[in-house]
Amino acid sequence: MVAGNARIKDARRLSRRSVRTERRLFLADGPKAVQGALEVPGCVVEVFATATATATHAALADTATEAGARWTLVDDRALASLSDSVTPAGVVAVCRHLDRPLGDLLEPERHLVAVCADVRDPGNAGTVIRCADAAGADLVVLAGDSVDAYNPKTVRATVGSLFHLPLAVERDAAAAVRAAQAAGLVVLAADGSGEVDLDDAGDLLSRPTAWLFGNEAWGLPPELAALADHRVRIPIHGRAESLNLSTAAALCLYSSARAQRR
Amino acid sequence: MVAGNARIKDARRLSRRSVRTERRLFLADGPKAVQGALEVPGCVVEVFATATATATHAALADTATEAGARWTLVDDRALASLSDSVTPAGVVAVCRHLDRPLGDLLEPERHLVAVCADVRDPGNAGTVIRCADAAGADLVVLAGDSVDAYNPKTVRATVGSLFHLPLAVERDAAAAVRAAQAAGLVVLAADGSGEVDLDDAGDLLSRPTAWLFGNEAWGLPPELAALADHRVRIPIHGRAESLNLSTAAALCLYSSARAQRR
Repeated sequence: MVAGNARIKDARRLSRRSVRTERRLFLADGPKAVQGALEVPGCVVEVFATATATATHAALADTATEAGARWTLVDDRALASLSDSVTPAGVVAVCRHLDRPLGDLLEPERHLVAVCADVRDPGNAGTVIRCADAAGADLVVLAGDSVDAYNPKTVRATVGSLFHLPLAVERDAAAAVRAAQAAGLVVLAADGSGEVDLDDAGDLLSRPTAWLFGNEAWGLPPELAALADHRVRIPIHGRAESLNLSTAAALCLYSSARAQRR
Repeated sequence: MVAGNARIKDARRLSRRSVRTERRLFLADGPKAVQGALEVPGCVVEVFATATATATHAALADTATEAGARWTLVDDRALASLSDSVTPAGVVAVCRHLDRPLGDLLEPERHLVAVCADVRDPGNAGTVIRCADAAGADLVVLAGDSVDAYNPKTVRATVGSLFHLPLAVERDAAAAVRAAQAAGLVVLAADGSGEVDLDDAGDLLSRPTAWLFGNEAWGLPPELAALADHRVRIPIHGRAESLNLSTAAALCLYSSARAQRR
């Protein structure tokens, strides 16, 4: 062990959500995530890396140092204690939380926003953030009683997208919907029993839009769906009862992207 | 324990792929999966259920009996030994494999086919099958060195869709592509560096199509992608490097469904 035990021990405590929330810090695991974090000014506090990983990712160490982030050598065992990966890649960054108040983030004009309400599975939340990034969304909101955006599984599932677009966390999902509407966005709830078919939504999709997605198991609460301007269903052509959250989100967000760019 | 130990022990061995493959049997776990399996004539061999689950799902027990499947009462412990769920729902069916040779399944005219090559994650394979069902595909092919379609995690991720549409398993992915072409299908490879943009694919998508999807980590081998008639990329509007397999499959399959039904 080269680095002081105290800082590693401190970083290890970030595996707990309560500690992450209190200290507004989290861990980014692996060279791609660390690279993404380093591209966000002021995000990275410290990088822990093995000597092997430091040699392999020398450019990353240079970037970190230039960005004013401490690069600390640790042994394999200490590194593994910071990683929730079965095969740690040898580099883990302590990062500052990225979310900002929703009000601040709705300020510049937004065209495509993804709002997740009560999303519970870390992997699903991460995949939706990745899809939102791919579809060119300019904001993601984790609303209601959603999983922590900084859960290691969420961070991993975003494959770097957590660092690519603005993020807000809003405990009151109804407030998030109203804020989006007040900012001039049409709020479309993705809802299996919605009154609008996604394929027939036409011009509706070309307007600045916030998509509202519900929990992976039980969807959107009716009272929340009712707040949206329209409820949109993805057509089910076969015998499946529904789609899973991330595939539904991809279809909705890409439909908007296509309509808005036409 | 009410049922003979021997049959339960035999069923438990189906947790191993080699045993499933040799005996061409697998387990469907939970009332929805068992219901789906019972809707496929001749699929269910035997249902193991606790007394509580039998009382709760009396209609299912009737359906099973009418279908000629044995309904066997077991205690909680025996049931749990057959389920890979943390909270077993009390009912597990021993089912016959559903896949048939690809040649047989291409015989009636097909409009939309999903071919997965070297898909390794059970959850991903299951989600693609679910998406294919939702998009109205009429055939799924697990090709190359793909995960077992009857892995309990795959079965669960299909949420019943495994029982909804025909399935072929073809170890030779190139042979699967050629067979699809010979059957008059346009083969489109989903490929991040493809020469056709999905949004510009236009009329191409309205033709009878087999989509070819690659491994979740490394995509399609170039030599396999080269066999396809066209390579189609999903536009990435933001900074994400790529989409995950199931969201990419959903976007491709639904684009075809939309074009074919226009």
